[in-house]
Amino acid sequence: MTRYAMLGEIMMRLKAPGFERLFQTPTLEVTMAGAEANVAVGLGRFDEDVSFITALPKNELGDTVRDELRKHGVDISKTVFQEGRLGLYFVETGANHRPIKVVYDRADSCIAKVDPSAFDWKELLADRDWFHITGITPAISETAMRCTLDAMKTAKEMGLTVSCDLNLRAALWQYGVKHIDVYRQMMEYVDVLVGNEGHFESCLGLSARVAENDIHDNPSAYRPMADEVFAKWPNIQKIAITVRRTVSADHQSTAAILATRDEMWISPIFEIKDIVDRIGGGDAFTTGFLYALDKHGVCQKTIDFAGAAGAMKHSIPGDFLRATEAEIQALADGAAGRDQR
Amino acid sequence: MTRYAMLGEIMMRLKAPGFERLFQTPTLEVTMAGAEANVAVGLGRFDEDVSFITALPKNELGDTVRDELRKHGVDISKTVFQEGRLGLYFVETGANHRPIKVVYDRADSCIAKVDPSAFDWKELLADRDWFHITGITPAISETAMRCTLDAMKTAKEMGLTVSCDLNLRAALWQYGVKHIDVYRQMMEYVDVLVGNEGHFESCLGLSARVAENDIHDNPSAYRPMADEVFAKWPNIQKIAITVRRTVSADHQSTAAILATRDEMWISPIFEIKDIVDRIGGGDAFTTGFLYALDKHGVCQKTIDFAGAAGAMKHSIPGDFLRATEAEIQALADGAAGRDQR
Amino acid sequence: MTRYAMLGEIMMRLKAPGFERLFQTPTLEVTMAGAEANVAVGLGRFDEDVSFITALPKNELGDTVRDELRKHGVDISKTVFQEGRLGLYFVETGANHRPIKVVYDRADSCIAKVDPSAFDWKELLADRDWFHITGITPAISETAMRCTLDAMKTAKEMGLTVSCDLNLRAALWQYGVKHIDVYRQMMEYVDVLVGNEGHFESCLGLSARVAENDIHDNPSAYRPMADEVFAKWPNIQKIAITVRRTVSADHQSTAAILATRDEMWISPIFEIKDIVDRIGGGDAFTTGFLYALDKHGVCQKTIDFAGAAGAMKHSIPGDFLRATEAEIQALADGAAGRDQR
Amino acid sequence: MTRYAMLGEIMMRLKAPGFERLFQTPTLEVTMAGAEANVAVGLGRFDEDVSFITALPKNELGDTVRDELRKHGVDISKTVFQEGRLGLYFVETGANHRPIKVVYDRADSCIAKVDPSAFDWKELLADRDWFHITGITPAISETAMRCTLDAMKTAKEMGLTVSCDLNLRAALWQYGVKHIDVYRQMMEYVDVLVGNEGHFESCLGLSARVAENDIHDNPSAYRPMADEVFAKWPNIQKIAITVRRTVSADHQSTAAILATRDEMWISPIFEIKDIVDRIGGGDAFTTGFLYALDKHGVCQKTIDFAGAAGAMKHSIPGDFLRATEAEIQALADGAAGRDQR
Amino acid sequence: MTRYAMLGEIMMRLKAPGFERLFQTPTLEVTMAGAEANVAVGLGRFDEDVSFITALPKNELGDTVRDELRKHGVDISKTVFQEGRLGLYFVETGANHRPIKVVYDRADSCIAKVDPSAFDWKELLADRDWFHITGITPAISETAMRCTLDAMKTAKEMGLTVSCDLNLRAALWQYGVKHIDVYRQMMEYVDVLVGNEGHFESCLGLSARVAENDIHDNPSAYRPMADEVFAKWPNIQKIAITVRRTVSADHQSTAAILATRDEMWISPIFEIKDIVDRIGGGDAFTTGFLYALDKHGVCQKTIDFAGAAGAMKHSIPGDFLRATEAEIQALADGAAGRDQR
Amino acid sequence: MTRYAMLGEIMMRLKAPGFERLFQTPTLEVTMAGAEANVAVGLGRFDEDVSFITALPKNELGDTVRDELRKHGVDISKTVFQEGRLGLYFVETGANHRPIKVVYDRADSCIAKVDPSAFDWKELLADRDWFHITGITPAISETAMRCTLDAMKTAKEMGLTVSCDLNLRAALWQYGVKHIDVYRQMMEYVDVLVGNEGHFESCLGLSARVAENDIHDNPSAYRPMADEVFAKWPNIQKIAITVRRTVSADHQSTAAILATRDEMWISPIFEIKDIVDRIGGGDAFTTGFLYALDKHGVCQKTIDFAGAAGAMKHSIPGDFLRATEAEIQALADGAAGRDQR
Repeated sequence: MTRYAMLGEIMMRLKAPGFERLFQTPTLEVTMAGAEANVAVGLGRFDEDVSFITALPKNELGDTVRDELRKHGVDISKTVFQEGRLGLYFVETGANHRPIKVVYDRADSCIAKVDPSAFDWKELLADRDWFHITGITPAISETAMRCTLDAMKTAKEMGLTVSCDLNLRAALWQYGVKHIDVYRQMMEYVDVLVGNEGHFESCLGLSARVAENDIHDNPSAYRPMADEVFAKWPNIQKIAITVRRTVSADHQSTAAILATRDEMWISPIFEIKDIVDRIGGGDAFTTGFLYALDKHGVCQKTIDFAGAAGAMKHSIPGDFLRATEAEIQALADGAAGRDQR
Repeated sequence: MTRYAMLGEIMMRLKAPGFERLFQTPTLEVTMAGAEANVAVGLGRFDEDVSFITALPKNELGDTVRDELRKHGVDISKTVFQEGRLGLYFVETGANHRPIKVVYDRADSCIAKVDPSAFDWKELLADRDWFHITGITPAISETAMRCTLDAMKTAKEMGLTVSCDLNLRAALWQYGVKHIDVYRQMMEYVDVLVGNEGHFESCLGLSARVAENDIHDNPSAYRPMADEVFAKWPNIQKIAITVRRTVSADHQSTAAILATRDEMWISPIFEIKDIVDRIGGGDAFTTGFLYALDKHGVCQKTIDFAGAAGAMKHSIPGDFLRATEAEIQALADGAAGRDQR
Repeated sequence: MTRYAMLGEIMMRLKAPGFERLFQTPTLEVTMAGAEANVAVGLGRFDEDVSFITALPKNELGDTVRDELRKHGVDISKTVFQEGRLGLYFVETGANHRPIKVVYDRADSCIAKVDPSAFDWKELLADRDWFHITGITPAISETAMRCTLDAMKTAKEMGLTVSCDLNLRAALWQYGVKHIDVYRQMMEYVDVLVGNEGHFESCLGLSARVAENDIHDNPSAYRPMADEVFAKWPNIQKIAITVRRTVSADHQSTAAILATRDEMWISPIFEIKDIVDRIGGGDAFTTGFLYALDKHGVCQKTIDFAGAAGAMKHSIPGDFLRATEAEIQALADGAAGRDQR
Repeated sequence: MTRYAMLGEIMMRLKAPGFERLFQTPTLEVTMAGAEANVAVGLGRFDEDVSFITALPKNELGDTVRDELRKHGVDISKTVFQEGRLGLYFVETGANHRPIKVVYDRADSCIAKVDPSAFDWKELLADRDWFHITGITPAISETAMRCTLDAMKTAKEMGLTVSCDLNLRAALWQYGVKHIDVYRQMMEYVDVLVGNEGHFESCLGLSARVAENDIHDNPSAYRPMADEVFAKWPNIQKIAITVRRTVSADHQSTAAILATRDEMWISPIFEIKDIVDRIGGGDAFTTGFLYALDKHGVCQKTIDFAGAAGAMKHSIPGDFLRATEAEIQALADGAAGRDQR
Repeated sequence: MTRYAMLGEIMMRLKAPGFERLFQTPTLEVTMAGAEANVAVGLGRFDEDVSFITALPKNELGDTVRDELRKHGVDISKTVFQEGRLGLYFVETGANHRPIKVVYDRADSCIAKVDPSAFDWKELLADRDWFHITGITPAISETAMRCTLDAMKTAKEMGLTVSCDLNLRAALWQYGVKHIDVYRQMMEYVDVLVGNEGHFESCLGLSARVAENDIHDNPSAYRPMADEVFAKWPNIQKIAITVRRTVSADHQSTAAILATRDEMWISPIFEIKDIVDRIGGGDAFTTGFLYALDKHGVCQKTIDFAGAAGAMKHSIPGDFLRATEAEIQALADGAAGRDQR
Repeated sequence: MTRYAMLGEIMMRLKAPGFERLFQTPTLEVTMAGAEANVAVGLGRFDEDVSFITALPKNELGDTVRDELRKHGVDISKTVFQEGRLGLYFVETGANHRPIKVVYDRADSCIAKVDPSAFDWKELLADRDWFHITGITPAISETAMRCTLDAMKTAKEMGLTVSCDLNLRAALWQYGVKHIDVYRQMMEYVDVLVGNEGHFESCLGLSARVAENDIHDNPSAYRPMADEVFAKWPNIQKIAITVRRTVSADHQSTAAILATRDEMWISPIFEIKDIVDRIGGGDAFTTGFLYALDKHGVCQKTIDFAGAAGAMKHSIPGDFLRATEAEIQALADGAAGRDQR
């Protein structure tokens, strides 16, 4: 069994009930959320061996995060507990013409202020086979960026597979470096890359683009995008590209492409008309992708499973992919919401 | 006024809130549910005279079921209370590509273990005009099957109209008989039959089938299905066939056909794009069908009302058809969700 | 800054949770609601200077209304507190084929029974620039009608701009006058008129009509309707006409037209497929219309903003337009529910 | 089995959650309540045969009351449905030094405006053995007072046992008669009287009083009070007197006395330190008293059961005595909150 | 009418439901809280003219605070909105042997980081008569301390009455000064001082102490404490001393003393056995004290009202004194939780 | 660090909200519960190494139990998953004179029907130091009794410390053996015994008893009880005896005694006047006892900590001891509900 490690921030997500606007009624729903943590939990629920590494405060909030991760089968023994605060975000669900609204209150969290020397990557990764990171962690702070690069470099040196999900939160990049410079450095250590159609340009500064709605009419339009990445970073072996078309806050369609240097596979388009919770959809895709890649290798079945995992998440409240492998496989195989009794 | 009697199991339904997965948050919503009980409650809410017959435990769960049935105007005086347990089921609502999930915990309920001699059908049916049963009750246990056949036979002998809603829960048939053999025995006593397009094959072993999506383009395609039933069981006089097309967990369309030996009427197609709760939709159809058949006889108005009742249920939380005759008639007459102030 | 005054009834709205039928579970959600109050709150949330004038009971219900209005920045200092009751209404959300249901319990409220002399309009309007009223207030009672006409007349005499939103609640007109007679009297004082395509006939007894679905194919079809109003009441300078097509309780499309004596502008059509709460949609349109008219004058931008405000409301629980000017402007400018992080 | 009939008002009770002040958060909890209805439901839950007679509105509120009464086994077939409104009351629970607060909105309810001729008492009471009324019903309106006296007089003439629970809501008496005059008229028809130590003076204008805290030290102090009633109304045969000492909104003690013309029995004192809901405590006492009087006759067991029923209610949310005979008997026999597993 | 101004921090308080431990179930209840804000709201609910001055973030959290303050009649026009965050605190209610637990997340809030020059005290206080502050505000940060002293000094110079509630949160004092030094500086500007029996020592470094439980047996024991303050700061004219005895998390008793240089008055002891929410109890006392002092002057009635206000708060969820003057006066006059119908 | 193993049943507990009666409103609160599981979770929350061994169903209910145990740091890897059902129980909180009510629905659970050979105790206990069991597990079924004795015997043979908490659920013993015979067999393997004052007689058939309320006046009265156990089972080395006095459903006092063959220590009496949730109080005591015994040995500190753990539980919703060691130690050291900020 592949043994995963992830580094990132996990926040407390405080959501207004139902379709209410923030603080419309005086209640908030508490869940946990974070790009890498979402992947860790998704894999944990598939009974994979996954360690989530972060820094958490020594208080009830940190303990609650610890409990939540253990609950989903994620190993938390490599995480550092220290004085400080937990990052928070407040969110309201969108509907129709009203988009989701997120208010971050994540500055100065433990992971943003952690001393990079708190993590001895040689030791932390000694029993691990795979390291996963996203483009959000290095955005948090300069020290978090330092931790990210240390971990990736060490993982690569130790022979772990390194995967990275590009993910740009432009508002977070506030410590005075250009995000493209950091992302390009990160790419040096990556084996498996995940990104949406816009990330290659916005994160990596590449030039290849795709016209809207091309995916099934003209999948080959995505080839130059992949080729440009492969050409620039010879270490990258596999790329997954996600494609999303937003109709309204309730309705979007998603699809994905798996590209190697030689081949390309395209998932079906998943039409999602009554979105329950779209946050974490990209992380769910990555969860399904890592899992299926490990189980099935590069093939149609893998991108179908990844696409189904991403689509399935849109029907589940919270950031986490609370679904079984069997449920996702059924969707990948063509089921569409029929009840089972 | 027609006086109805029904035999069946009523369970406690424990549902996760909103679109949550089961046990995602630590709350369950309690309602009551059961194929014949749903019909009894629907008729009770139309102010019909209906007795629901079952076996219930002598404890707070049995008392709660009793209270709930009385609340909706259903007579519960013919029900037996004894030691034992109430059947339960846990359920989460589906959404988009994620189907409804039901976890049954109904084994060994009072009604499954009841001694058939607990019911003196001659006496229980003495003041009744109509007996209704579904294909689920005989699946529960061998004794429940025995009760079913006793009741149907007695009802037939006493001159009651007997209706049966075919309804296959394959997972329940575990006491060692073939369900087709039981269903064929039941058919001997039936005057009015309800089933969906698949039931005639799966429950009764008949051969006529209908291609998908034929209903309005080619309604005559359903004729052979009805004819095969009429040919095999001369006692059956009226058949209602329901047709359902599932697009996603939120979206389906329904329609229905009423067939006599000579004629056939087809309801409009009801397009339901934002399903609130689909469980009990079939029972709501049967409720509307029995009610309208009694009130209007075999005619277009009857199948329209039945179809509207079934469609309306999809917009109401819980298994029960909590709607008035006027609301359903308005839908049957073509209203479509416009508000009334 | 324009200083608004409004006269009307504000009620307590008691709603069944989610999609439940009234009293299905024993909980009601409390918000406040009323045609003019909804506009007052919407403008208050845009930081406009707005006074809401009504009569409220001297008890916890009246105090709660006062608190709610202050909360949204509405001045309540001109309101009268007296013995009596607050109007209530009970409501359940519709879904699919099941329409919204409203049960009014508003008879004999303080505002229905208020003595017209309780309001000294000369004084109340002395520091105001604009007076707004709807067609509901004069329907409440004969004295409320008297207050309405007094206020409009005084406002007109004092040189305030007077706007009126036609709005017919036929069931309320029970004190023995013909609503058309009252509405025609009111029109004598109006500068800015708002109504939907049916109101001109039903409220004012005019003859011009528009065939369904004409709005973008043939906008000029609306010209005669406006012309008839302009011809009959020379004081009316601007008319906004809203157009609504209802597909189901969850789905409708809206658009609007702004007409002067010389020109006409048409908003985009807003397709709303997953309505959260449609009540107050018309009032939200009027809010946006008054605000934009004052800020931008008669132009395309104004009707687009008004249309967007009305559409946006359908995604927000409660009667109030809890949205910022920026959010509505973004929708008017073409955003469609994409999330912002 | 004794067959009871009761006349009175049943209201919808809208309560703030937990210990919140009214409208502190935007939710209300819905239950039903009314002095005679509380007794009817209590008896219905003991499986007694009880008819509740009132006038209810023909709308969702009236239907909900009907459903709630049926749920608890109360016959509602003698109730009149008509146009109008249901009485409401808003309530917040007290705590410590903060008392319960009730805001009535019950004016002009159906029962307040009902035409006395709507009730044909000869027919309504034909199959009944016992008629029960309280001092609240005649306070509602002049016509309600008329109905009360008609019903009592007819009941007496037909040989039913007539019981009356004195209960003064001074704020309700607004139609211009003196409540003492009405209560004295009512007394002419009463066989069994219930009242607290203050009612004999405040309702009936009698002179006997009892010093505080006398009950167990000096029970004979209550004898003159009973004697004065017995002397004035020879038809009255049994009196139950309840005694309450309030320490705080959470804490009170209760006890009761049963007096005949010859004898007197005193219940234990029930110390209630953590009151859950005190409303309906007096009605629960009356429920227990009527039930035990019928079952056990005049004896110690009867007043103990009645006292226990009243005390038990303080631990149950809502106005109704949701408890079994066995639970109350256990308390009457000396159990004190020990758990049973 | 006295016109008040207050400076301080207002936080969002996030509470676990009922008696649950933090994050035991995934819901938090949102209210607002802060020592001076609690007083401002209490006075606002008594219809006093009160301005609350702080710095709030320009986001949904800041807007929600603004709305909440306006709701209770507090003027918010003098408050500064800027980039930054709102202070938060998480709390669980205690019970029995388990104390309340508070987890602060208030570092780096807008008010902690505000530039003192953002407040032009001359202008802000120009239309005010009274300035109130607590010992918590200067603890937040050095700049907050600077604002506190600026405001007090200006207020004093402008002839406002200055009141101060001593209140030590030792954990907050982290910017490197001794709190006693700051508090002693503040005392130079104070007219009216509020503190509990321990504050004079812990905040001001005075030496007079009182043995436990002395208050009514030996009220003169408190005289030296007051005298020591009066001697040291000749500007201080009135002191209120609160006394609290904690039995358990549910049970405490409170009393208070009002001292001038010549006289002393003692409130009754309020025994609170079923505490609903003790947070804000001290601020409620101060609210009652400021209000009554202004209305009644130095006298027994004033300290009784203040004590009753503090006691009453313990029965109300949230930090705010949501009570009317009449309710508090009734308690001050000796009522004890009896219901009023 | 001591490594614990426990065998037992864990059930889903379904509780009515607040103080409601079962099914009064249609919501149930879900937690997990079981005598040994409660101890396992308590130790897990103290960061102890504890394995809980049981049989769970392969469905969402079994998965939820697994997640809940992991959440609290309990190892679940030794548990068996199989077809079958999870035991349930329904519960309502008591108040005042109304006791807690429990309705079990636990028959035929996985652990009741498990084949004893499913557990290879040699292997399961190989890495464990301590085995804990209660008197409930052998009551479940004959096979569960078999598993219990197998585990205890193996543990004893392998040199683990064996602890047993006597705990009689008379209603469960239905498979035809005398519980005293089973309990006496179990005693052969026990090192550390826990029981309340009644268990020694009811479970073990011993004769020594203690008069009520003796504990602090006359602690030596408990000596003969301990001596009788020590005399009969030479293997038993330590006994903890809990003493409980119930005043009402809200109020009880608890204390405990630790006895060795030579010495005896008595805890303080904990008076609990506002019980939040008493279920699991005994298991919390055992949790504290095992933990402190291991950490501090036989001494006063141990029995104080154990008593404090038991008392603390009464203030926490659910069966689990959700408290930190520090919180319990503070109570053991004399803190009494004072808040900490």
